Amino acid sequence: MDTIAPLPDIEHTASVFAEGITLDCGQRLESFTLAYRTYGALNAARSNAVLLCHALTGDQYVAERQPLTGKPGWWENMVGPGLPIDTDRFFVICSNVLGGCMGSTGPRSVNPNGQIWGTDFPPITMRDMVRAQQMLVARLGISRLFAVIGGSMGGMQVLQWAATFPDQVFAAIPIATAAYHSAQNIAFNEVSRQAIAADPDFAGGRYWAEGKIPARGLAVARMMAHITYLSEDALNRKFGRKTRRQINDAAAAGENASFFGDVFEVESYLRHQGSSFVRRFDANSYLTVTRAMDWFDLAAEHDGDLSAAFAGTRTRFCLVSFTSDWLFPTPQSRAIARALNRAAANVSFVEIETDRGHDAFLLDEPDFARTLGGFLSGCAEHAGIA
Amino acid sequence: MDTIAPLPDIEHTASVFAEGITLDCGQRLESFTLAYRTYGALNAARSNAVLLCHALTGDQYVAERQPLTGKPGWWENMVGPGLPIDTDRFFVICSNVLGGCMGSTGPRSVNPNGQIWGTDFPPITMRDMVRAQQMLVARLGISRLFAVIGGSMGGMQVLQWAATFPDQVFAAIPIATAAYHSAQNIAFNEVSRQAIAADPDFAGGRYWAEGKIPARGLAVARMMAHITYLSEDALNRKFGRKTRRQINDAAAAGENASFFGDVFEVESYLRHQGSSFVRRFDANSYLTVTRAMDWFDLAAEHDGDLSAAFAGTRTRFCLVSFTSDWLFPTPQSRAIARALNRAAANVSFVEIETDRGHDAFLLDEPDFARTLGGFLSGCAEHAGIA
Repeated sequence: MDTIAPLPDIEHTASVFAEGITLDCGQRLESFTLAYRTYGALNAARSNAVLLCHALTGDQYVAERQPLTGKPGWWENMVGPGLPIDTDRFFVICSNVLGGCMGSTGPRSVNPNGQIWGTDFPPITMRDMVRAQQMLVARLGISRLFAVIGGSMGGMQVLQWAATFPDQVFAAIPIATAAYHSAQNIAFNEVSRQAIAADPDFAGGRYWAEGKIPARGLAVARMMAHITYLSEDALNRKFGRKTRRQINDAAAAGENASFFGDVFEVESYLRHQGSSFVRRFDANSYLTVTRAMDWFDLAAEHDGDLSAAFAGTRTRFCLVSFTSDWLFPTPQSRAIARALNRAAANVSFVEIETDRGHDAFLLDEPDFARTLGGFLSGCAEHAGIA
Repeated sequence: MDTIAPLPDIEHTASVFAEGITLDCGQRLESFTLAYRTYGALNAARSNAVLLCHALTGDQYVAERQPLTGKPGWWENMVGPGLPIDTDRFFVICSNVLGGCMGSTGPRSVNPNGQIWGTDFPPITMRDMVRAQQMLVARLGISRLFAVIGGSMGGMQVLQWAATFPDQVFAAIPIATAAYHSAQNIAFNEVSRQAIAADPDFAGGRYWAEGKIPARGLAVARMMAHITYLSEDALNRKFGRKTRRQINDAAAAGENASFFGDVFEVESYLRHQGSSFVRRFDANSYLTVTRAMDWFDLAAEHDGDLSAAFAGTRTRFCLVSFTSDWLFPTPQSRAIARALNRAAANVSFVEIETDRGHDAFLLDEPDFARTLGGFLSGCAEHAGIA
């Protein structure tokens, strides 16, 4: 792979918070920026705002072309006029997380010394991300969100919102998520980080200064993570053992081809995932945000009692999991449901039957869309939203 | 990680086959060597030989100290006097696979031009490995094996033995394996290979010439693979979210520590797995042998009909799978059992309840040991072995 230049700077809609924020690690950001997008219109009562929380490598471009990749937004099938998250009815907000790389303050940003933060960027927690989002929501003139919705890491933020700002969340939809990151998921993240650190172009995190990026390491990290987003059945259905070249062809073309060439279709698919990812995501952000996921443990904030995180909550919860999701398997959602039940919360829990693995929450899954749309409509009636 | 020198050369017991072998890829090895170990004694009837087939990163040191690492053999709990694979009764053979790096001919070996093969080593298939093993068995004066036993990639070899040399295998025990490598497993292997190739010290496979190895890439490959050998439950039981350092300590020590330092115990465990592996395994062998696994598809040799691979077999099969093994899950063993049933073969199939994942076949699992010992004893009676 040739040397690839760092991500270009793009103009994003953003809000600057000159008041700064004191992070969970004790360090302060004296000022920070959140880049965000909105869809639909805030009603006169300011009661119809829906905050969407994006996943690890997602961003604020939910329902429109992503300006860097030119690809459709990550939830265009779910967010729009007449869709389950109906922008004719709701005012939808999504911001790039603190620590991200799509316009919000993160390792790509310039620090008070005029240098790029890089790996000097302070460690960020899920609660830091959510507290920053809350400042943005308040600045938009919204004192209570109608709903907070997100999948995967976005679901962690939904749970954190409900726990930290219980009176500001009418409905919460944590999807394909968990109340803490499991040892297996920490392990996968750690391999990702080691792959990035192993790339000499990482240059101890100062790759910016050298005008390049750790493209090979970041691609390996993405390839591995991508496997965890799918399922064995989905991979078998999509690729099976389809080959692009036969072993004898590969051998005839030279041995390297047989090791690294396009032998199985699943391999060229993965390589494509890796090489396109490095053109849209910053390696230091990947380190920051995966660490935030690893540290997430909502019960730990309450002496190990998850139900205490939701004590007295009046938020209405709808938990969603997917049968073939082995990254955030159903038992992890069920544990949240049980904790909410112990807190006497209003909670429904739906497990969607699908073979598409963790990524199912981003795909066209009719049962999931119906669940989401139905729950939001029901809650909207209770909340008196037209 | 500092530069690490290639593996030292060690004296191994070995047999040289000057007649050579024509490989499935069409290329010939004009001569090849298999390094092997034996335990117990061959009886007068030469009827008590048991061939053990090792897994991807295993070797021939089954029941004795491994000379390079100084660690115990990989199946000391299973192979020995009075143990399930009883060396008072059976003559146990294990050879390092063709393409391996523990004394058998592989990418570390010198080619006819006097150069180290490296990535010029021809691609090897599971059938090539088995045909080479059969030549060794014949040279040891054994025309029929009492049993062929192996787990994971070793189980693939067991299946290949039964299909290719049906009259030379009295009993076959394929453990935690599959009749073909799934798309998901190919994907994991491909990420391993990409991690190795991404390491500049790989030097296009010619790292030998430079006196170093692609230690960082190989360590990342091993770390990822190691996760797949375990289970979510086992990782949670063993490590949970136990931390070695708290976030604030890490931040106080400098940000890099918070990304790469020992934060969670599962991370330092994985890093140890990675760094010790690179001192005992050759990167080019890893490429060769993972490719052999990817290519394995026994049904494909028989127009897609797995039962045809076993048509007319008189071999007695005992298939074993483990409930928490997600690398070679039970349905893959069940598919083999069904194909054997369609071929009217003598087959039993045992699923062992355990939370220890794929690695369970190497660990102290009493139900598994009883299954193996009981099946072998029963077969030994039928075979007339004292």
